[in-house]
Amino acid sequence: VTTGRFDTDTAIERGDDLRFAAEVTDGWDIGAIPNGGYLLAIAGRALCAALDRPDPVALSAHYLSPATHGRADLDVEVLREGRGLATGLVRMHQEGSLRLVVTGTCGDLSTSDGPTILRAEPPDLPPPEACVPALPSPRFPRILERFDMRLVPESAAFAVGIRHGNAEMAGWLRFSDDRDFDAAALPLVSDAMPPAVFLMMETGWVPTVELTVHVRARPVPGWLRCRFVTRFVTDGWLEEDGEVWDEHGTLVCLSRQLARVREGSPTYGSG
Amino acid sequence: VTTGRFDTDTAIERGDDLRFAAEVTDGWDIGAIPNGGYLLAIAGRALCAALDRPDPVALSAHYLSPATHGRADLDVEVLREGRGLATGLVRMHQEGSLRLVVTGTCGDLSTSDGPTILRAEPPDLPPPEACVPALPSPRFPRILERFDMRLVPESAAFAVGIRHGNAEMAGWLRFSDDRDFDAAALPLVSDAMPPAVFLMMETGWVPTVELTVHVRARPVPGWLRCRFVTRFVTDGWLEEDGEVWDEHGTLVCLSRQLARVREGSPTYGSG
Repeated sequence: VTTGRFDTDTAIERGDDLRFAAEVTDGWDIGAIPNGGYLLAIAGRALCAALDRPDPVALSAHYLSPATHGRADLDVEVLREGRGLATGLVRMHQEGSLRLVVTGTCGDLSTSDGPTILRAEPPDLPPPEACVPALPSPRFPRILERFDMRLVPESAAFAVGIRHGNAEMAGWLRFSDDRDFDAAALPLVSDAMPPAVFLMMETGWVPTVELTVHVRARPVPGWLRCRFVTRFVTDGWLEEDGEVWDEHGTLVCLSRQLARVREGSPTYGSG
Repeated sequence: VTTGRFDTDTAIERGDDLRFAAEVTDGWDIGAIPNGGYLLAIAGRALCAALDRPDPVALSAHYLSPATHGRADLDVEVLREGRGLATGLVRMHQEGSLRLVVTGTCGDLSTSDGPTILRAEPPDLPPPEACVPALPSPRFPRILERFDMRLVPESAAFAVGIRHGNAEMAGWLRFSDDRDFDAAALPLVSDAMPPAVFLMMETGWVPTVELTVHVRARPVPGWLRCRFVTRFVTDGWLEEDGEVWDEHGTLVCLSRQLARVREGSPTYGSG
């Protein structure tokens, strides 16, 4: 796996007693707020390091307060160390405020064995060159500079104000610096695309309450094929379900988040 | 809301310092092991009590070791108390062994406000009287005694050894003692039906690694309309996604679990 900005921006420094320090940079912002998937990727790194397991398998994050740029401290607690899987808890705080708490199970996905039965295909996307590049612009969030993101035209419609109601954000994703994806980067990928609900309604920021990421396999180098879908907005609550596949057609990640939404002017990229 | 066995079997006794005690009964077993959703319901009760919020909104559980019958201790830690939502952490242990750890956000669902847009309908089920009752039998787990469960014929097929491959477990659910459902019972409902993967393959126990439940609304009294679907079994990992609707056609709960599966003789009800 090649390295790149993702690695420097999620680097953790190990201290005593399973305490880690990280630097939350401004390169992964939505508006002025660091992206929740970016924070989860940092927490996942600390957890895997503390548990001495290579891959995050299931990470459940509850977001407590918006993060800021600068130093973050991560306290890890080991809850269970099995032969294969190990489970722990991470608290990320900044200047005394808890930003997120993550319970997570880590393991070695290269040794998974058991049956494989797929009841659905990878999303059927036009090739990347036939999709719409989500280009960084003053109106769009900084996190887009980190990716080469190619949305299918139906998904890109939100950018020109079309809210057709089919809340499916689908497309291709690579890092813009050609860093390959690995299991550690999939928590970030799970929260990197524009919210699918933008295709349903005008809304401001869509704050994540809870995000769970299940990593199924390590992706091979190349494009990721992604689809994020919102089916149910109820009383201002919504889910966003993600599926991520690699270039070999392997399902590498499922994600689901619970978020809040309010009607209002679109603020995507306003920060 | 009427009371019943669910209430006595999930009752918690409050001690000092946000410590709670509960009695894990044998009435909700799968084989000889207490059901994971039952344990989560107990943890959710302790969390709501400690946070002084009526409803569990998002509970994320990681299962660390199989529970046994008898006393369980629950230690709750408050992580954040906001105006509306509050978040905490519950550790359930028995005789020094950690059984599960739950991070959860609780609130008052009767005050949710915001837009409602549904992109999918409740599952289209034949009426309960045209479905197949999942009757308790020596071959079936004890938890079925607690429910009046009516599976659609396609879902009930697993009970006669048919594995048609469409892993959708759908049907109606009530408590057998006519206790009404409320938000507190939905974590149990999220894990109460036979695993959908039984329609795909012969398998033994399907241990849950992680279970997240999002409660969207308090159900009205009556039947719940449930659908649990597994689409991807990869290297022995699977997800089971649940949707639960009440008799008014309100979406009351979404759930997702990550579980392990191995090929083998069916052991459902063997315990």
